[in-house]
Amino acid sequence: MSHCAEIIAVGTEILLGNIVNSDAQTVAQALSELGINVYYNTVVGDNPERLKSAVEIARSRADIIITTGGLGPTFDDLTKQTLAEAFGKKLVLHEEELLKIHRYFEKIGREMTANNEQQAWLPEGCTVLKNDWGTAPGCAFEADGVHVIMLPGPPRECAPMMRERAMPYLRALSDATLVSHEVHIFGMGEGAVENRIRHIAEAMDNPTLAPYAKEGEVLLRVTGRAEDTEHADALTQPVLTMLAEEFSDLIYGVDVPSLADVVVSALRERGLKLATAESCTGGLLSKMVTDLPGASDVFLGGVCAYHNEVKTRLLGVPAEILETDGAVSRVCARAMAKGAAEAIGADVGVSITGIAGPDGGSPEKPVGTVYLSVWKDGAYWDKKLSHQAYRGGVRNMAALHALDLIRRVLASGEE
Amino acid sequence: MSHCAEIIAVGTEILLGNIVNSDAQTVAQALSELGINVYYNTVVGDNPERLKSAVEIARSRADIIITTGGLGPTFDDLTKQTLAEAFGKKLVLHEEELLKIHRYFEKIGREMTANNEQQAWLPEGCTVLKNDWGTAPGCAFEADGVHVIMLPGPPRECAPMMRERAMPYLRALSDATLVSHEVHIFGMGEGAVENRIRHIAEAMDNPTLAPYAKEGEVLLRVTGRAEDTEHADALTQPVLTMLAEEFSDLIYGVDVPSLADVVVSALRERGLKLATAESCTGGLLSKMVTDLPGASDVFLGGVCAYHNEVKTRLLGVPAEILETDGAVSRVCARAMAKGAAEAIGADVGVSITGIAGPDGGSPEKPVGTVYLSVWKDGAYWDKKLSHQAYRGGVRNMAALHALDLIRRVLASGEE
Repeated sequence: MSHCAEIIAVGTEILLGNIVNSDAQTVAQALSELGINVYYNTVVGDNPERLKSAVEIARSRADIIITTGGLGPTFDDLTKQTLAEAFGKKLVLHEEELLKIHRYFEKIGREMTANNEQQAWLPEGCTVLKNDWGTAPGCAFEADGVHVIMLPGPPRECAPMMRERAMPYLRALSDATLVSHEVHIFGMGEGAVENRIRHIAEAMDNPTLAPYAKEGEVLLRVTGRAEDTEHADALTQPVLTMLAEEFSDLIYGVDVPSLADVVVSALRERGLKLATAESCTGGLLSKMVTDLPGASDVFLGGVCAYHNEVKTRLLGVPAEILETDGAVSRVCARAMAKGAAEAIGADVGVSITGIAGPDGGSPEKPVGTVYLSVWKDGAYWDKKLSHQAYRGGVRNMAALHALDLIRRVLASGEE
Repeated sequence: MSHCAEIIAVGTEILLGNIVNSDAQTVAQALSELGINVYYNTVVGDNPERLKSAVEIARSRADIIITTGGLGPTFDDLTKQTLAEAFGKKLVLHEEELLKIHRYFEKIGREMTANNEQQAWLPEGCTVLKNDWGTAPGCAFEADGVHVIMLPGPPRECAPMMRERAMPYLRALSDATLVSHEVHIFGMGEGAVENRIRHIAEAMDNPTLAPYAKEGEVLLRVTGRAEDTEHADALTQPVLTMLAEEFSDLIYGVDVPSLADVVVSALRERGLKLATAESCTGGLLSKMVTDLPGASDVFLGGVCAYHNEVKTRLLGVPAEILETDGAVSRVCARAMAKGAAEAIGADVGVSITGIAGPDGGSPEKPVGTVYLSVWKDGAYWDKKLSHQAYRGGVRNMAALHALDLIRRVLASGEE
C-alpha cells in the first residue's frame, strides 16, 4: 500500500514572506525518510474558508494530510476547527491536556487567560500528539480513508513533534520498517559525488541510496525496507561498506550530527584542548565549535587576529613573515597556529588566514586564497584553498576545511 | 484594481525536503511590498501533469501567477512548456537569448550542448526578463486576464530577477507608485511593538504601517501609494516622524541593512577602532562584524576567552575577580572590555560573558544570565541580560545587544 501525503502550512506570515516555510522542509524530509511520496505542498493564510478550500483540494489528491501551524491560543488559530469540520468531527475538551496547560502557566507564574483553553479542544476520537516542546498539542485521526495530522507551527516545536510523534504514527500505517543511515562526505562537490554513485543508485530499489547537498558537504542516505529493523538494517550494510571503500577518508562520519561535532568528540576522546587563530573568518570557526553544548570540554579559546598588528601582538607572528611572505601565506598560518596554542596553553592550534573579498585580492593571491594550518606536538599540517569566490562562501568553506584538517590530523595520529 | 497573486514553486527537491522554499519567501516579500495580496503558495515537483493541475487551480483563484524553477536546460525543466500550453501559447526560439547563451559558453570555455538551446525557447509575444545572474531567462505574459511570470529557481538568480525584473513589470500593472521605508527597532519584543502601534496601523489605509519580526528585532515598514515617487514619499513622512517619537532610541536606523552595519558605519565615521572579548558567544560577535565587507576599516580583532585562564592570560582579567565575583559578573565584563581594547590597541572594547546553557546555570546565575560591557576613553557602559533560555537564543541576543550597546555609547558621545 503506497501512501501519498500533502503538506498544508497555515500562516499568513509565510504568505507575507515574513518567515520562510521551514516546517514544510522538516515534514518533507521526514516523509522522504519514510518513503512516503509528496506531490504538492500548499501554504494558506489564517483564513478558515481558504484553508477549507485547500483541504478539499488536498483530500482529492492525497491520503495523508499534514498541517503545520494554527494550533495556538489566539483567535486566528483555526486549523483544528477547520479540519474537524471538513472531516465531520466535533471538537471535545481533553481534560488531561487542559491540566497540562494549567500546570504550565502555574510553573511560569503567569495567569492563564481563557483563550488558552482552546488548545485543549481536540477532534473527537483523535490520537493526541503530546507536545513536550510547547503548550499546543498536535493530533491525528483517520476519516474517509484520509489520515490527518496536525502539528504546531513554531519550528522549534514542529520539528520534534514530526520526528517524535508523527513519524511513529505514520510508521504504524505501513507493514514495512525502514532503517536509514547517513554517510557524511566533506571535500567533494555534489556533482562529483553523484557521478560516482549514480549508476549504482539508479540500479538500486531496496535499499535505496540518495544524495543530499548540504552547506559545504554531501550527505548520502541509505535506506533499507524490511519486515523488521534487523532485516532492514542488514540490507543497508553492504551499501555502507561499498561507500566506505568508494569515498574512504572523505567520509567524516556516519549518523553523526556535524563536522564540528565529530571534531569536538575526537578531541574529547583524546583529552586534547584546542585553540583557534582566525583572520579572514573573523571568529566563525570558534563560533561553529562553541555552537555545540559542551564545547568547553575541549575548546579553551581563540584569537581573532583581523589586523596584522594583532597577529604580532597576541600570536607572536614575527614581523618579518608579515613583511616578506604577507599575512596570507603558509608560514604566517603556521606561526598563527603555533602562536594560538602557545598563547592560550592548548595542545592543538588551528589557524585560518586568507582573502575573503570582495576587495583585497591580487593576481598572485586572488579572492578566495586561504591558508590553514594545524599545530600539534611541534608538527604542522597545512592546506591551501582557492576555489570559492563569494565572501560568505570563502569564510564558510575555510572554517569547515579547518575543522576537517583537525579531524584528519587526529585520525592520522592513530595509524 | 486590486491584484491577487499565487506563487508556484516547481522542484522535486523542495518536495523531498532537500532544500527549503526560500524563493517563495523572496517573491512573497516583494509582493507584500507592492501591496499585492497572496492567498496561496503551492509547491509541485518536476512533473508536467501535476504542474498543469496546480496552474489550473491557481488561475481559478488568482490573476497573477508567479512560478519559480524549472527554466534550466535539463529534460525535467518543463515550466515554460507547461505554462505556455496551459495558456494556449507556442514556444518560439528567441535569437537574442540564444546568442547570449552561446556567448556565455564561449566565455567560460565549455562546449554548449544542444539541451542548453532549450533556455532560449520562450512563449510567443512574452516580455523577456533578462537574467544577468545566470543563463536561463525569465518571461512574463498576459493571457485570459491572468499575468504569468516565470523566474529561475536558484535563489541567487531568483532574488535579483524578482526585484530587478518582475517588480518593475508588476509595478507597471498599477497606476500608483509605492514608496517604502523600513524602521528598524531593537530591544523591544514583537508583541510590545505591535501593541503600541496596532490602533494606529489598523486605522491607516495610505500610507500603510506593518510590523515584521526579524531575528532579534522588529522592522516596521511604512508604505505610501501615490501617482509619483515624490507624493508617495511625502505620505510616509508624518508616520516616520510619529514612529521616531514613539520609539525614540529603540530605533537603530531607517532603511539600513543591519545593526552590525550601523555600528561599523558609526565607528568608521568617528575614526574609531574596535576590539572584542567574548566568552559565551565564542566568536559570534566578531563573526557578525566581519560578515560585512570592509569591516577591517574599524575592526582590529578580538579574543575568544572561553576558559577563565584565557581571560587572565590574554585579557589581563585579575584572578581575584574570577575567584570572588566569577566570570559571569559585571566586574569581569568590564575587565574583559578594557583588556581587549588594551591588548589589541583599540579605541573601543566590547565584552560578553554569560551562561549560554544548557548546563552551567545556578539559582543565582541561571542560564541566560549575560553581562556586557563597553570600554571607551576610560569609561564603562554595562548591560545585564537574563531573558533568553535556549543556547542559540542566548548567544544571538547577547551579540546583538553588544552591538546595540556600542551604538548607544557612540550616540551618547554626541549629545
